[in-house]
Amino acid sequence: MKELEERIREQGTVKPGDVLKVDAFLNHQCDVELFDHMGAAWARHFQGRTITKILTIEASGIGIACVAARHFGNVPVVFAKKAQSINLDGDQYTTTVYSFTKQKEFPVIVSKRYLNEGDHVLLIDDFLANGKALRGLIELCRKAGAVVEGIGIAVEKGFQGGGDKLREEGYDIDSLAIVESMNPQTGSVEFRA
Amino acid sequence: MKELEERIREQGTVKPGDVLKVDAFLNHQCDVELFDHMGAAWARHFQGRTITKILTIEASGIGIACVAARHFGNVPVVFAKKAQSINLDGDQYTTTVYSFTKQKEFPVIVSKRYLNEGDHVLLIDDFLANGKALRGLIELCRKAGAVVEGIGIAVEKGFQGGGDKLREEGYDIDSLAIVESMNPQTGSVEFRA
Repeated sequence: MKELEERIREQGTVKPGDVLKVDAFLNHQCDVELFDHMGAAWARHFQGRTITKILTIEASGIGIACVAARHFGNVPVVFAKKAQSINLDGDQYTTTVYSFTKQKEFPVIVSKRYLNEGDHVLLIDDFLANGKALRGLIELCRKAGAVVEGIGIAVEKGFQGGGDKLREEGYDIDSLAIVESMNPQTGSVEFRA
Repeated sequence: MKELEERIREQGTVKPGDVLKVDAFLNHQCDVELFDHMGAAWARHFQGRTITKILTIEASGIGIACVAARHFGNVPVVFAKKAQSINLDGDQYTTTVYSFTKQKEFPVIVSKRYLNEGDHVLLIDDFLANGKALRGLIELCRKAGAVVEGIGIAVEKGFQGGGDKLREEGYDIDSLAIVESMNPQTGSVEFRA
């Protein structure tokens, strides 16, 4: 998606340690018009698939998923939680994920009420790097008996390989910008053609 | 807002300890069409005010704020973060808030790049109880020199008093459903007329 690639070139910042900061428009300050265009792009890619629910993970995925949902007939958006809360009770599906950005393990939790056998799920997230967060969401779907119909990602760090491994396993991933390389010295970002 | 009150009556659950669970449509599973109607209601209430930015707090406020933003000319949405991350660097405004639902103190952080003097801010959140989270956001705005133009809340627990105290201080709060009392034995919920 040219628009997203241009925004990354203009406003993204490359940091040492394979960090790409896009907090000007994606995951701290949110450009909701860009989110709307991203939702439209995913709707084109996944056209013809039955999507009954969008599943994402707090926090950065939530805004993108909620804006994108209107391109999928306003299906419910469920966001997996990363910590226990008194608002979470009853039966839950849980798994554990290692976060690259937070540098620690955390639980990923979804109430059994909101993810069911018979759900056809589109997973949405802001980033795909090594794929650990996505594999957590896939595991929650597996436990629920829900079908993963596709995966919509804003920025994939292609050089970390998580996306390509999931594609080899048969998942249909639509990443709107795939970074092949980036250089913290020069700030340059190269995208997959 | 009748639609939200009806959803709370139909799908909300009253738990001991002043807990109102609305995770079927507001803060775990998200009804984005309802969010859109909520955004339209806030836009009517705050009509005539200059809003340059929406500020919310992760996680449950994000989806509501991002969907509502289209009713305010797609202004940027900024969500305050509750923990340090390697994605947060540089200068930040920070304060501390006690969470009723998580039962602990946590930092509330926003990058200085995304909240500025000259910003006219609409605060949006899913819940208003004792007002501590909102006061954290107000404090971030004060530190940044930004003007709080108004506050849009989905569900206010009126009996906890935080909203009325803020109104007495002059804040224009549009809560779409104000719960005056609720009963965990019967499950009944009474709204402010």
